[in-house]
Amino acid sequence: MSEVADLLFTNVRLATMVGGYGEIEDAALAVRDGRIAWIGPRAAKPQASSEYDCGGAWMTPGLVDCHTHIVHAGNRSNEWEARLNGATYEDIARQGGGIMSTVRATREADVDTLLAQSLPRVARLLSEGVTTLEIKSGYGLEAGAEERMLRAARQVAGRLPVRVATTFLGAHALPPEFAGRPDDYVDALCSEMLPQLARHGLVDAVDAFCERIGFTHAQAERVFEAARRLGLPVKLHAEQLSSQGGAALVARYGGLSADHLEYLDQAGIDAMAAAGTVAVLLPGAYYFLRESTPPPVAALREAGVPMAVATDCNPGTSPMTSLLLAMNMACTLWRLTPQEALLGATIHGARALGLHGQIGTLEVGKVADMALWDIARPADLAYAMGSNPCRAVVNGGILRGAHIAA
Amino acid sequence: MSEVADLLFTNVRLATMVGGYGEIEDAALAVRDGRIAWIGPRAAKPQASSEYDCGGAWMTPGLVDCHTHIVHAGNRSNEWEARLNGATYEDIARQGGGIMSTVRATREADVDTLLAQSLPRVARLLSEGVTTLEIKSGYGLEAGAEERMLRAARQVAGRLPVRVATTFLGAHALPPEFAGRPDDYVDALCSEMLPQLARHGLVDAVDAFCERIGFTHAQAERVFEAARRLGLPVKLHAEQLSSQGGAALVARYGGLSADHLEYLDQAGIDAMAAAGTVAVLLPGAYYFLRESTPPPVAALREAGVPMAVATDCNPGTSPMTSLLLAMNMACTLWRLTPQEALLGATIHGARALGLHGQIGTLEVGKVADMALWDIARPADLAYAMGSNPCRAVVNGGILRGAHIAA
Ligand SMILES: [Zn+2]
Ligand SMILES: [Zn+2]
Repeated sequence: MSEVADLLFTNVRLATMVGGYGEIEDAALAVRDGRIAWIGPRAAKPQASSEYDCGGAWMTPGLVDCHTHIVHAGNRSNEWEARLNGATYEDIARQGGGIMSTVRATREADVDTLLAQSLPRVARLLSEGVTTLEIKSGYGLEAGAEERMLRAARQVAGRLPVRVATTFLGAHALPPEFAGRPDDYVDALCSEMLPQLARHGLVDAVDAFCERIGFTHAQAERVFEAARRLGLPVKLHAEQLSSQGGAALVARYGGLSADHLEYLDQAGIDAMAAAGTVAVLLPGAYYFLRESTPPPVAALREAGVPMAVATDCNPGTSPMTSLLLAMNMACTLWRLTPQEALLGATIHGARALGLHGQIGTLEVGKVADMALWDIARPADLAYAMGSNPCRAVVNGGILRGAHIAA
Repeated sequence: MSEVADLLFTNVRLATMVGGYGEIEDAALAVRDGRIAWIGPRAAKPQASSEYDCGGAWMTPGLVDCHTHIVHAGNRSNEWEARLNGATYEDIARQGGGIMSTVRATREADVDTLLAQSLPRVARLLSEGVTTLEIKSGYGLEAGAEERMLRAARQVAGRLPVRVATTFLGAHALPPEFAGRPDDYVDALCSEMLPQLARHGLVDAVDAFCERIGFTHAQAERVFEAARRLGLPVKLHAEQLSSQGGAALVARYGGLSADHLEYLDQAGIDAMAAAGTVAVLLPGAYYFLRESTPPPVAALREAGVPMAVATDCNPGTSPMTSLLLAMNMACTLWRLTPQEALLGATIHGARALGLHGQIGTLEVGKVADMALWDIARPADLAYAMGSNPCRAVVNGGILRGAHIAA
């Protein structure tokens, strides 16, 4: 590089995530104007205004949690406890439990309340090296509450050092006002809610829950058509509890990702491979729901479908705020390799958000979003359970300690 | 109470763990001379030299992690990664892997090295409200290295705010020097190692690994006889991978606990119930090893055997430094109730260490070891995955923030 860098990280071990881990020992990395300006051996380091000795720590790209419902009000530990004490799902539904209890709490909350409850959860993720986070709506299920969720999601990025990608998930569940009339709800969603929210600049992508207990293949397709009219990319909660052909559908729309995928079939895999649609794996929900059918990891690997790993942070099926734990579960429960898990929480997570040109690897020209780790080797990140070896985080070239308070 | 308290916690919600959660809303708790001196409604609070407003937070007894191998050198993420990339156990053994790689690393480490590697792990546990920790030897397998492990364990308590109970686990694995001569090793252990370590005051309890791949029932009994001669309480790694009658054996010696217990039978349960031996449940190892036979939780509950929950923190089968995560796994994987999990990480953990007279509940006269939590209800502690709602910790009446650096 010809000009002097702003900040130079030296005495660092890099896992660039370019070609596997892409390890470079005894390296240096220079930042200029918030981007990675130079990478190479320490011995050849360029000049910089300031220098940070990493003491031999490992540096990875900042982690990307590409599937969360982290903005919501309330939690559902009471239902979980009731179930563990013998209550049936029917008992809980009769008492107003399930997703509708989160919808009620979220509808009642204003943006500040949503932020106050959500920021500690986000801070917890960030303390583990997350620098980019996807946040879905989907607990409002009417225009005002969906808008408040997305506004809260946008404000997260102003309140904490993190890049946020928002996803409109109005087709998450059928709101009680439309009981028995799902197509009317999808009409309202496509013709009013989504265009209005998109006009406010609140929607980076559009998602739906395609499942027997969610929306049909045909309804999801109508949502995708509406997104296409607005020029918005799509993704889908697909094949989580049963095979619905959702993966092939979202692939047909050039979707960024199909998420969950426990019941994905070979046709879906082939469609995803052809379309470049990312498989977002969410082991937290599988674990928490005690499911027993894993997604077809070996077949996805074989087909060359990029696999991302995310927390699915949500109060009903994955109350998880640790992406490192999701990585451990992906390896332990589903036999991803530690390298695949780390690729899944960096470059492939970025790809699932359409941000792989900007973030997700340590490469010259990318945004300088990085995490520094006190570990012996990259595999340690997925191996340890409940550990947090994150020493510091770099957001757009700004170095911060890892312990961020909300 | 007649005298003025040193410190009064007010505006607090208590989970005393006396009679279930033992909830007291809008309470106060007074500390004098490091012990709990008064508990009651805030309206009736006694006088105190200083007062701490808990802002409506929940207070529980400090958590007790009653089964760890947290003092050791190195980790085994490389083996784990190799296995996930297709290496067999034989491949790994041929390359010097498995428990013997931890034994080699631990034997090479002096006390300061052991401490330097172990304190960050301990600090991580403490940041989640742990105030008492059991630490086992068992990676030295010869007098000097076992002594260094136990000295390091003792020093943990001087370096970080935690009470440590040490356990001698010389009968963890057969050291290579005694290959083919397990009885000779047990002889040396009983006649030399254990008495010498006990004389140095390094042993609070004695443990063994009773398993096909460990020591036989008869060898474990010889270890227990040696412990009895020294007046030391016993516990046992029992019925983890197969039924060996270990639970009944340790119960016959009035043992503090039988640990793991996936293959425990009814005779073992009955013996434990009669002896008051605690069942220490270790879901981290079950999860990490992908086992499928759960311990007989319903039968233990039915028989009234107290169930503790612990991390089993160790590099080979449970690289876990989160007791909250162990609680979540006990509920999710084994259907403990959140209340049972919290009792298991407080009073029953204390019982497994013989410390239930001193710690484990919020009761007048007990040591003032407490944790303060930003949660809506006690069930949240087991419900959330990867969260850390610990606001502060109290050790013997001394209030500290939760984020303790090692
Ligand atoms: Zn989701
Ligand atoms: Zn153990």
